[in-house]
Amino acid sequence: MERKVDVAIIGAGSAGLYALAQVRRRTKNFVLIDGGELGTTCARVGCMPSKVLIQIAEDYHRRAQLGREGIEGGDQLRVSGPEVMEHVQDLRDIFVDKVLSHSTDEMGDEFIPEYARFLEPGLLQAGEQRIRARSVVIATGSTPVVPPAWRDFGDRILTTDEVFELEDLPASLAVIGLGVIGLELGQAFSRLGVEVTGVDQLETIGRLDDPEVAASAIQLIGKEFPLWLGEAAAIEEAEDGRLRVSAGERSVLVDKVLVSAGRRPNLESLDPARAGIELNADGVPDYDPNTMQIGELPVFIAGDVNGDLPLLHEAGDEGRIAGINACSDTPVAFRRKTPLYITFCDPNIVQVGARLSELDEATTLVAGANFAMLGRALIMGRNKGLVRLYADRASGRLLGASMVAPQGEHLGHLLNWSIEQRLTVLQMLRMPFYHPVIEEILQPVLRELVVKSGLAPEDYPPDLEPL
Amino acid sequence: MERKVDVAIIGAGSAGLYALAQVRRRTKNFVLIDGGELGTTCARVGCMPSKVLIQIAEDYHRRAQLGREGIEGGDQLRVSGPEVMEHVQDLRDIFVDKVLSHSTDEMGDEFIPEYARFLEPGLLQAGEQRIRARSVVIATGSTPVVPPAWRDFGDRILTTDEVFELEDLPASLAVIGLGVIGLELGQAFSRLGVEVTGVDQLETIGRLDDPEVAASAIQLIGKEFPLWLGEAAAIEEAEDGRLRVSAGERSVLVDKVLVSAGRRPNLESLDPARAGIELNADGVPDYDPNTMQIGELPVFIAGDVNGDLPLLHEAGDEGRIAGINACSDTPVAFRRKTPLYITFCDPNIVQVGARLSELDEATTLVAGANFAMLGRALIMGRNKGLVRLYADRASGRLLGASMVAPQGEHLGHLLNWSIEQRLTVLQMLRMPFYHPVIEEILQPVLRELVVKSGLAPEDYPPDLEPL
Repeated sequence: MERKVDVAIIGAGSAGLYALAQVRRRTKNFVLIDGGELGTTCARVGCMPSKVLIQIAEDYHRRAQLGREGIEGGDQLRVSGPEVMEHVQDLRDIFVDKVLSHSTDEMGDEFIPEYARFLEPGLLQAGEQRIRARSVVIATGSTPVVPPAWRDFGDRILTTDEVFELEDLPASLAVIGLGVIGLELGQAFSRLGVEVTGVDQLETIGRLDDPEVAASAIQLIGKEFPLWLGEAAAIEEAEDGRLRVSAGERSVLVDKVLVSAGRRPNLESLDPARAGIELNADGVPDYDPNTMQIGELPVFIAGDVNGDLPLLHEAGDEGRIAGINACSDTPVAFRRKTPLYITFCDPNIVQVGARLSELDEATTLVAGANFAMLGRALIMGRNKGLVRLYADRASGRLLGASMVAPQGEHLGHLLNWSIEQRLTVLQMLRMPFYHPVIEEILQPVLRELVVKSGLAPEDYPPDLEPL
Repeated sequence: MERKVDVAIIGAGSAGLYALAQVRRRTKNFVLIDGGELGTTCARVGCMPSKVLIQIAEDYHRRAQLGREGIEGGDQLRVSGPEVMEHVQDLRDIFVDKVLSHSTDEMGDEFIPEYARFLEPGLLQAGEQRIRARSVVIATGSTPVVPPAWRDFGDRILTTDEVFELEDLPASLAVIGLGVIGLELGQAFSRLGVEVTGVDQLETIGRLDDPEVAASAIQLIGKEFPLWLGEAAAIEEAEDGRLRVSAGERSVLVDKVLVSAGRRPNLESLDPARAGIELNADGVPDYDPNTMQIGELPVFIAGDVNGDLPLLHEAGDEGRIAGINACSDTPVAFRRKTPLYITFCDPNIVQVGARLSELDEATTLVAGANFAMLGRALIMGRNKGLVRLYADRASGRLLGASMVAPQGEHLGHLLNWSIEQRLTVLQMLRMPFYHPVIEEILQPVLRELVVKSGLAPEDYPPDLEPL
């Protein structure tokens, strides 16, 4: 027997739950289907536990500053690996419980704890049930990629699915893949005393494409643990149950390997072809990012599964757009936000708006400043890093920014909102900058761009605006 | 003999130096006069050394979080008072040197290291020199107010002029006056182990006029050291060379008293009446804040001396405006910035734009949120505080904000720039908020204001914008 619903949402992660909230307002006839572990990637194995580990690592790392400040005993601080991991898990559990109590906990048979797959367009199999849905939201998330051969190394191979479950810190760890996850966790473990080696086949880290910012980031992070860039990693069984990780000429013996080399959309097991969904060369369907619709099908794809923006705030928008449009006769197009990417390593790596590699050198102005002499950064003992801004030569509008910066997460918001407002560098320079704050780093950069752009008034300092 | 100049700048502090930069571009015939200690209030005895002390205190205070995070030995950390003060002084000296090397160090006889006073309009006496100036910039700063009777207690009475010179931390300290300075230094000393008692005759602290934010701030700061509010302080000589500080029924014995009850403009010794400058009831001349001109006189008044905005970034604007107009035939009016006040206590106290007491209840919407359950604040162990936003009921435009908030300094910039852009709460809600960040605290507040303002679209979540 077929159960008929208006909307079937596949996946009870962040995107699926955001979709659910919109669907619920529009119909009472829906199902949410998820056969996997509940609680969202963000709360269980993503944003939240990683930030806890980072916070602990930063607090411990701070001991290096205490001596010069007149605080004695910093060198006596000790890390208890089991307690660190217990704290990570405790807070993680709070965040997961919060998600569950707001979502699936009190759902009746509208929630189906099974994996779904398409039988034909609009028809899903979920466990014993067949669901006939007028529209479908696919929000099945993604899974860490681990080369099959490495799976044989068993529990010495970690991904974000396992790493937060550790009961103690490993003595040594190779981190393969230095994107957001690899950098955040690699640096945090390193600061907590784990002997970390970072490996990436790219010549950059944190997806930085601005060569100056990348060089600064590599230099700063590379001081804390070795970064082997530009060569692919290989893993072999070694003596004593350890693993030998090598890249080109270099190799190291480690207890564990964290594989953070990307995530694969959870699509295959849905049997998308049966629903008429074609996958492109990247293995995901083409979809309209303003409606989340796949082609002309009554199918909407939101969150990490579409392979685009693996970020909570984007998954929230995508889930809601998908949920709204799954209930609409004609899909509504919504504006998407100015890009913002933050890697919460220290200093933060932040990219806002357009990337340098997307911009035309001839029409783009670039300027930057480092933190060496910025008052507040000096006071914090965190005067390392570089901010670069990109502006349109003709209009003077800010187009993008890239940085490795103390408290870069906040600079990122300020710059992102400025791009959203289509501000020129002159308008930005005329905004208040308190003293002494990290935001002041933007002033010399903006000033340089104002001069280069020809927006600078002749008679007055550019940051003063005649009435 | 009279020395004739185009412009005389009296005062080589921040405002005077900013004025100097503008004057230099417009004439070669000027003098800068300052008989006091050089290096600016900001660098010597204000923003900078206070931030150093606060940074040390925050780093030491953080030990309370270490245990739950699995870091052992936090209770073994010890403060060395002499080393703390030495670090404050070392960094302070770096900042002062930086100011001097950029300003008076290489000036010849254009710099006159004397106190100036007016003999008649346009005529100044500075030491042996008589200066005839076509226009004058008054940038003489301000001085901490200490009731004359308290001066008799000698070096047990401290102001910001003396406190950073201490060679060790006092065992006990009363802080009289809980504005910016009293709160910042009182809390920092308290966290470093000094037994601090705070006293203010007002019923609020940090100039907060929003009763809910004030209550939250008083509760949070009051947990760290006692705040005696609503009664004036008295000081008496006590046994053992200590001082007895009392307010109403309460009294305490202390080693030192920090008097942070306001600053008085340095005007009197200028003999302003001789220049035709009248002082108003507040003891300062009336002036135009857009030109900095006093009445119709060729005299401009910038920085702390005008009694308005004792903030570095405002002094910078005022100094430059004064400098420009001291060289102009007709004064040019410049736009002034949206107010931003930050007290760098922890959590930060921040006030942006209009104050609640300035707004009409009937036309203003107010909403707030506390940090108790905000993910990132929980992770930081800093989930205390309250943010309140004020919006115009008719237009939905953000008018102001008041908060006691972790990382409030950054929220303050984001909100201030939003007010400068005349954004509505709906426009703000549609901006990107990353996850998990402190900025997310604004989302529920903005959402509530969007609903209250009637700006919320009927069909869609307000933070999504249909194309």
